[in-house]
Amino acid sequence: MAQKIKLSTIADALGVSTATVSLALRDSPLVADSTRERIKEHARAIGYIYNRRAASLRTSRSGIVGVVVHDIMNPFFAEILKAIESELDRSRQTFLLSNHYDQLEKQRNFIDTLLQLGADGVIMSPAIGTPREDIQMLEENGLPAVLVARSVEGAGVPVFRGDDSYGIGLATNHLISLGHRRIAMIGGTDQTSTGRHRYQGYVLAMEKAGLHVQPDWRIPGPRTKQAGFEVSGQFLALPDKPTAAVCWNDLVAIGLMNGIARAGLVPGVDVSVTGYDDLEEAAIATPALTTVWNGQSDVGRRAARALLDRLNGVAVKVSQELIKPELHVRQSTGKPVERK
Amino acid sequence: MAQKIKLSTIADALGVSTATVSLALRDSPLVADSTRERIKEHARAIGYIYNRRAASLRTSRSGIVGVVVHDIMNPFFAEILKAIESELDRSRQTFLLSNHYDQLEKQRNFIDTLLQLGADGVIMSPAIGTPREDIQMLEENGLPAVLVARSVEGAGVPVFRGDDSYGIGLATNHLISLGHRRIAMIGGTDQTSTGRHRYQGYVLAMEKAGLHVQPDWRIPGPRTKQAGFEVSGQFLALPDKPTAAVCWNDLVAIGLMNGIARAGLVPGVDVSVTGYDDLEEAAIATPALTTVWNGQSDVGRRAARALLDRLNGVAVKVSQELIKPELHVRQSTGKPVERK
Repeated sequence: MAQKIKLSTIADALGVSTATVSLALRDSPLVADSTRERIKEHARAIGYIYNRRAASLRTSRSGIVGVVVHDIMNPFFAEILKAIESELDRSRQTFLLSNHYDQLEKQRNFIDTLLQLGADGVIMSPAIGTPREDIQMLEENGLPAVLVARSVEGAGVPVFRGDDSYGIGLATNHLISLGHRRIAMIGGTDQTSTGRHRYQGYVLAMEKAGLHVQPDWRIPGPRTKQAGFEVSGQFLALPDKPTAAVCWNDLVAIGLMNGIARAGLVPGVDVSVTGYDDLEEAAIATPALTTVWNGQSDVGRRAARALLDRLNGVAVKVSQELIKPELHVRQSTGKPVERK
Repeated sequence: MAQKIKLSTIADALGVSTATVSLALRDSPLVADSTRERIKEHARAIGYIYNRRAASLRTSRSGIVGVVVHDIMNPFFAEILKAIESELDRSRQTFLLSNHYDQLEKQRNFIDTLLQLGADGVIMSPAIGTPREDIQMLEENGLPAVLVARSVEGAGVPVFRGDDSYGIGLATNHLISLGHRRIAMIGGTDQTSTGRHRYQGYVLAMEKAGLHVQPDWRIPGPRTKQAGFEVSGQFLALPDKPTAAVCWNDLVAIGLMNGIARAGLVPGVDVSVTGYDDLEEAAIATPALTTVWNGQSDVGRRAARALLDRLNGVAVKVSQELIKPELHVRQSTGKPVERK
């Protein structure tokens, strides 16, 4: 077995710092050309190239991948992150996380940090209002990006997300097939691509079935359990009393069901409710939630693989990859019941 | 206004890399003594000290703080993290997160990354089995640490956590005062300090009230909603049918209540259930959950402040700060009901 050669051996021999040696071996522009050449020559001469660490350094990789999403407290993102993490782990990439809470400035600060650290790449669910230039800047600075869950028009990087319009159509059609005619849509925002696609999918399914889409029946906003709980009174008081609610996600649906139960009605019997995402929790909710599986683990795994492919110089299709959602029918939906 | 002097100006003048200059100005041991002195002397000579960036460098700060916990998917940690994040934001520190999933190797990898990045400090909920030497090593390498939620015996760094023994005592005593005599304890593990303290607090409260602690009534393990749901059958089949369950945390309690409801019983009426943490979700659960507020936001805020104090050279007490929990009584607990 070859003896292990340390960076400090080279550094001591040449009278430079180990940091300089490390940077030089990674072809960093921070090191003067002449110094870099001197270091690389010496490294080759003493056989440093056979060292495993040097081999990894030759690829100019720092081993760091950044991941930034709206809010990792949201289990939807957490499930995507688990899949990303497990892929990156296998490639021994270190995984640095941050929330942007849909604040462009926070997203930019994190990205600045990644650039300063010489990170290898970034996986992001872009903040609301992210201009395509922000993504293009990453690429220009040698920080390859892959998007998950949300797209940015014209950014020219791979995007992995569920087919939101199709998915919400599955939920809406399921309610229609049970006999529901007055169906509300609760939660989400038109400021994200996801929000627009889900609302369009709901409208499309209603219109296809010849049903009237009442503007009042759209309660935009809620994205959390708490918010779903809080609008339950507003939902129950809607004009013409919708018999069912298509919810933005499972969190809103579970919150809404809790609110409906608190009002003395039985969700799944008196009012039908659908979720979106099929979080682990959906199956154990009371009642078990009918929802749309949104392929979080697929999104995460495929996004991580695409990034790793890019880092390894494998060509990656720069396009949207739509994961096809599936309807999972459980006890929160049933035939329509007219409330008094 | 003084002209801005760049690191590269010094680097070019001395024929070293900007990285070496940056490290030297931060007194990094990675740079040879003679080089460091040469760089610092030159920097002083050309007035670099008046540069704002240099001023920040003089404090040896990278602006990066690492945070590593068991699993950020757990809302308990997420609530601590929110508080940490908001404190660090105000001090313009960048916040890098990682999960260790109680794997020492993952924790060590993240810490290696932080050391390589020259991070300013780390806030951690240490993985099960973290030896005190791992924490001491951080300090020796100039990476100040603050612990949250869990302690490591003899580590000699500040720890912020709730008083678990006292807190679980509040829940147990509440059930005893309602008339319960057969009280089970569901979830948690003796492998963590938190787990041991909570179990001890439960035993202590039972014994103080002259009640028998039946070993069978302890179902260790569950820490998630899913796991709480899965042991509900085992709980309902326990010998002598306990009339109440003190749960490890709110997630286990909510999962258990869902399981109890699935079995056709009414949680809060047929069986009393207490949680721990008072997550946002506890108040909107069905039924609303009686639980122990565990001061997550206090823990996070005080830990972040302690770390910032350490970074600013303010002395910080190296001891355990126990946040005093409070009981929040809601609808999941009532008088005991004998099941057939």
